[in-house]
Amino acid sequence: MMAAGLRALWAAGHWLRLGPRAPFIAGFSSRGTAGARTEPGPSLTRTRQQDGIRNIILSNPQKRNALSLAMLRSLQSDILHEAESQELKVIVISAEGPVFSSGHDLKELTEEQGPGYHTEVFQTCAEVMMLIQRLSVPVIAMVNGLATAAGCQLVASCDIAVASDTSSFATPGVNVGLFCSTPGVALGRAVPRKVALEMLFTGEPISAQEALRHGLLSRVVPAAQLEEETLRVARKIASLSRPVLALGKAAFFRQLPQDLSTAYHLASQTMVDNLALPDGQEGIQAFLQKRKPSWCRPAALAEE
Amino acid sequence: MMAAGLRALWAAGHWLRLGPRAPFIAGFSSRGTAGARTEPGPSLTRTRQQDGIRNIILSNPQKRNALSLAMLRSLQSDILHEAESQELKVIVISAEGPVFSSGHDLKELTEEQGPGYHTEVFQTCAEVMMLIQRLSVPVIAMVNGLATAAGCQLVASCDIAVASDTSSFATPGVNVGLFCSTPGVALGRAVPRKVALEMLFTGEPISAQEALRHGLLSRVVPAAQLEEETLRVARKIASLSRPVLALGKAAFFRQLPQDLSTAYHLASQTMVDNLALPDGQEGIQAFLQKRKPSWCRPAALAEE
Amino acid sequence: MMAAGLRALWAAGHWLRLGPRAPFIAGFSSRGTAGARTEPGPSLTRTRQQDGIRNIILSNPQKRNALSLAMLRSLQSDILHEAESQELKVIVISAEGPVFSSGHDLKELTEEQGPGYHTEVFQTCAEVMMLIQRLSVPVIAMVNGLATAAGCQLVASCDIAVASDTSSFATPGVNVGLFCSTPGVALGRAVPRKVALEMLFTGEPISAQEALRHGLLSRVVPAAQLEEETLRVARKIASLSRPVLALGKAAFFRQLPQDLSTAYHLASQTMVDNLALPDGQEGIQAFLQKRKPSWCRPAALAEE
Repeated sequence: MMAAGLRALWAAGHWLRLGPRAPFIAGFSSRGTAGARTEPGPSLTRTRQQDGIRNIILSNPQKRNALSLAMLRSLQSDILHEAESQELKVIVISAEGPVFSSGHDLKELTEEQGPGYHTEVFQTCAEVMMLIQRLSVPVIAMVNGLATAAGCQLVASCDIAVASDTSSFATPGVNVGLFCSTPGVALGRAVPRKVALEMLFTGEPISAQEALRHGLLSRVVPAAQLEEETLRVARKIASLSRPVLALGKAAFFRQLPQDLSTAYHLASQTMVDNLALPDGQEGIQAFLQKRKPSWCRPAALAEE
Repeated sequence: MMAAGLRALWAAGHWLRLGPRAPFIAGFSSRGTAGARTEPGPSLTRTRQQDGIRNIILSNPQKRNALSLAMLRSLQSDILHEAESQELKVIVISAEGPVFSSGHDLKELTEEQGPGYHTEVFQTCAEVMMLIQRLSVPVIAMVNGLATAAGCQLVASCDIAVASDTSSFATPGVNVGLFCSTPGVALGRAVPRKVALEMLFTGEPISAQEALRHGLLSRVVPAAQLEEETLRVARKIASLSRPVLALGKAAFFRQLPQDLSTAYHLASQTMVDNLALPDGQEGIQAFLQKRKPSWCRPAALAEE
Repeated sequence: MMAAGLRALWAAGHWLRLGPRAPFIAGFSSRGTAGARTEPGPSLTRTRQQDGIRNIILSNPQKRNALSLAMLRSLQSDILHEAESQELKVIVISAEGPVFSSGHDLKELTEEQGPGYHTEVFQTCAEVMMLIQRLSVPVIAMVNGLATAAGCQLVASCDIAVASDTSSFATPGVNVGLFCSTPGVALGRAVPRKVALEMLFTGEPISAQEALRHGLLSRVVPAAQLEEETLRVARKIASLSRPVLALGKAAFFRQLPQDLSTAYHLASQTMVDNLALPDGQEGIQAFLQKRKPSWCRPAALAEE
């Protein structure tokens, strides 16, 4: 449904309308070539980038967008692709079909695959989740449907998450004898402990509204407005100074686990560093002169 | 009301219907014999266990289920009783009468009792609260009424908490000149800081809905549905693999205070260990073969 | 509006009615004399203290109550003024005009001022925020209007925050090229991570209801009831034992970042120490004797 909607938007030239300054960057795709066991195959993700917004779409709806090792590598590669380019301002991760992602591919977790392979799967998954946090641009999850297990972990790991009001979220590993311990890392840092534990112990889903109430989501909208609302947030971010956001994002995660005094020491230094950035002074000057700021690398969407 | 309801359920043979495989375990009771000052007396708690679900009922409604030293030891003993038995899958802590628990017995906190005794009271209380977290099975609080001070702490310390919509929660120690510092340990880890501080500084109660909104509860239902809803959650947990839940619960609390990288390292290893459990592979195989899993130690309620 | 309301209350002698035991303490004002660059000027804050309640009012509505260095020092001085006096039981920070505070004064953050001055601004700001937490009495933010950037940080840093339902909160620094990194320290500890990051990355405001839902506020009321409701909370706190609250507040913040076992060790010791306070035993005795406690230093409002 969402994917169809996206295709319609693209067909209408809405989202991908070429801006005057941001050259169209063709979709690139990854096949997870890093793994010895991974055969080349059809791409599991699709990407488009326009006006600073990179959309990465999980595109294996037949397999409920399972986060197989190949899918994880495809996602990782799509995130890392020219990640430090000034053209990239924000990433939106969405999915094709009614399931955002059902989590790990259980066929990869059988006894035959062995603990070495299992370890590779979980480590790669953890790397992708931590990459989202380490990345210099904000990452938004746009969820329309069911997100379970590592799929729920992916939502919890994004910086911002917008979901349709019919979406739901679960960590149902206990039903197949596999406690969602790695999803619990992200979930336990996103929602209150009692919410996380009931989800982990019972495997039962929570609604989008419950997920919003408890901090797993930033925003819930009717399905029909999901893309528009997500795009609105992404465009806003894309209109801002990339170096300023990169500095701020890194500082936020660095200070968060510190004691208050250390946190303020780090953050105060970040503020001073931020003011020393060209965009820092440009922003202040523009404000004092009551004009729009003109960032070092102007955002294509700044005029909208 | 709740206790009457429970008795009615039992009389009707509903809850305690004997399953074919889980032998009835008679209620056992504790009198807190460990303390030198504690006189043997009528049991302060009642317990029943059936189909993997142990119900521990605070049963001193005349004293508003005060967490006296004897009550704490009775509760501790009931939790620890054959806690590693494979027959035990989940614990539900509830209470008789309109007050879930009013917290410490202030008669035990007078100057006459002296600081040594005070220390014993608070240390025992802290042991019980930490025991709930360390226990290998999930612990659910089923609250119908008022939970204050250490009673509120008990709710906050359980893994899951289901409450009737007429329940309320407070840390009113300031009214008697005793700031709820130990309840604040559990409360401060369950709800946002501003909610915890307003409760601690003013002593005023919050409603069940507020407690749900802020993470102190997992679920709120009308009083008439409290037992059914709690039992539904407990039965779901009892139908799952005990070793899998034990592994997952321990890992969740171990990773939670760690930095993200360490947390993922621990949790990834837990996932690999989980897959090496017999129930881990049984669950995966059952899923791939589209059949119900048959855990090593089948749960009595799996058929329901 | 609020300020007008406050003046009306004062004119009517309502709030500042002299109690029999608490002598009227004249408003004092600060001009931030510590800074070499700060010129003496009209006071940026106003204060009144009565019946144990100190009201500090940001009083520079023409400048949207910007937290300039002078304003920060004025606020700091007003907080510290005889802060250990037994007459002071609780502080309420409010503001004159439709903007609670717009955060730092951007004129102080220009390149001309230089990094040394910038550092002084952010360090002073951090000192004030940490002072609120270290202070021995509770600090309440009473918000009627817009609180942005360091103004939002101030709300997040108070122990309790009551706001009118038309208030809103934002960290819009990204719009002027200055990521709200120091406000993020307080915000990131008050609300879920996804809420904080969306606010920080987009700069968009959240409503009072959203702020309440996510833990930034303790309480939201219609604007017409804001002062009454805040005063009710403040009076309740002022009626309690100052030493008990001071002990409890310090212990709460000391135990919060600790692991559970250390936290309980600290808090249990605090409980024993609390019981050894004269007011600790007075409270317990009063409760057991079914009478009102009479704290060592009776609160003027205890009769209300």
